[in-house]
Amino acid sequence: MSETVTVRGFAGTDIRKITTDKGLPISTFRLASTPRRFDRESGEWVNGETNWFNVTCFRNLALNAHSTLAKGDPVIVTGRLKIRPWENDAGQRGTAVEIDADGLGHDLTFGTGSFTRLNPGSSEQ
Amino acid sequence: MSETVTVRGFAGTDIRKITTDKGLPISTFRLASTPRRFDRESGEWVNGETNWFNVTCFRNLALNAHSTLAKGDPVIVTGRLKIRPWENDAGQRGTAVEIDADGLGHDLTFGTGSFTRLNPGSSEQ
Amino acid sequence: MSETVTVRGFAGTDIRKITTDKGLPISTFRLASTPRRFDRESGEWVNGETNWFNVTCFRNLALNAHSTLAKGDPVIVTGRLKIRPWENDAGQRGTAVEIDADGLGHDLTFGTGSFTRLNPGSSEQ
Amino acid sequence: MSETVTVRGFAGTDIRKITTDKGLPISTFRLASTPRRFDRESGEWVNGETNWFNVTCFRNLALNAHSTLAKGDPVIVTGRLKIRPWENDAGQRGTAVEIDADGLGHDLTFGTGSFTRLNPGSSEQ
Repeated sequence: MSETVTVRGFAGTDIRKITTDKGLPISTFRLASTPRRFDRESGEWVNGETNWFNVTCFRNLALNAHSTLAKGDPVIVTGRLKIRPWENDAGQRGTAVEIDADGLGHDLTFGTGSFTRLNPGSSEQ
Repeated sequence: MSETVTVRGFAGTDIRKITTDKGLPISTFRLASTPRRFDRESGEWVNGETNWFNVTCFRNLALNAHSTLAKGDPVIVTGRLKIRPWENDAGQRGTAVEIDADGLGHDLTFGTGSFTRLNPGSSEQ
Repeated sequence: MSETVTVRGFAGTDIRKITTDKGLPISTFRLASTPRRFDRESGEWVNGETNWFNVTCFRNLALNAHSTLAKGDPVIVTGRLKIRPWENDAGQRGTAVEIDADGLGHDLTFGTGSFTRLNPGSSEQ
Repeated sequence: MSETVTVRGFAGTDIRKITTDKGLPISTFRLASTPRRFDRESGEWVNGETNWFNVTCFRNLALNAHSTLAKGDPVIVTGRLKIRPWENDAGQRGTAVEIDADGLGHDLTFGTGSFTRLNPGSSEQ
């Protein structure tokens, strides 16, 4: 009962990296995805409403995403969906929609790229 | 009833590009994906058996994938799964497992990269 | 760029059905899904935090879900993920996480059932 | 790198159940799924080609699926995709496309049903 989800969209922010006290790198960014849907009335494909996600990466993926991605880039992300209620000190409440990324990269639908292999023995599959 | 599937794996071949008579670019490659599974007896994560897919890309994605990817590269692909029986002239029969890619890119779990935006007005979402 | 998601969980509410002015049946319920994750420290599988979704069904699926499902039932849902900001008259804001169901049914992992075919010519696939 | 896939389709065979020497129940059936696709030339939705899968269930899900499902039933299955080469004693080779089901049930898009909870303490999530 683990919800895996794959999202194609665009990075709506730069990638922010922190390192925990235990030395764990974590990177986060916002991802905007606008579904295309077929409109029965007009008989055309139109843009649906945009979904926004908080994407979180850990370890090597956090380091590599931080040094590779920038705001506005087209991105594919696959990972586990997490829906979390939150409440801040001011008593405000809300819901955060997060993807814990298992893998991510630039979407070649929108351009070309280069790649440098860094983690040959990575077991973070 | 469309089967979308997302696969993280490694390109097992170089990317082969053709152009149809009507000028449609199509690129194909083989993708190997080895699932990790938890072994109850040993209490450890082990490699499962490898799944092999034929990945097919069209239009801009075909052009960009061909100029960006190479054999051995770590790749994320998302698209529609197609399972097709085939029979050749010699009477041999088999089953082809194909992914019609909607999006694909290098998997940053394994390295870093650069990206050049080429298709700003692309509607191939 | 459409986010399809499949969730296995339990109906956290009864199924509520309305009919729009135009005669469109719509059913909704809350779905709770608790992922299992492998805890590296204890070496055991443990419950993660629960994800809550609003599930929405239309047309025949709305009618059939309403007459078949009840609070507490184990359910599989597949559909399109929609993340929507909302604001009520009191000025409160929040985020709704919705699945527009393409298909759903009882999860036979947890029991047995019977089935009566009603919509043989349905094109709502 | 585990390929989860969700398929909506129809059982193309009855459900066949075996029990291994160690007492493990295993059920299998064939599942046919016909994707709908939008045809650009005609401007209409049409049937694509049918995908056939071998679905395999274990333990409680195997028992419950066997006593609940029949040939022709509309089914939702979610599980892990396995693509396996095979060779029989006659030297013939082929490829099997299998889904190891995590969950499955009747698809309420096509009818109504009843449900009896049997495995309240199941940890087979």
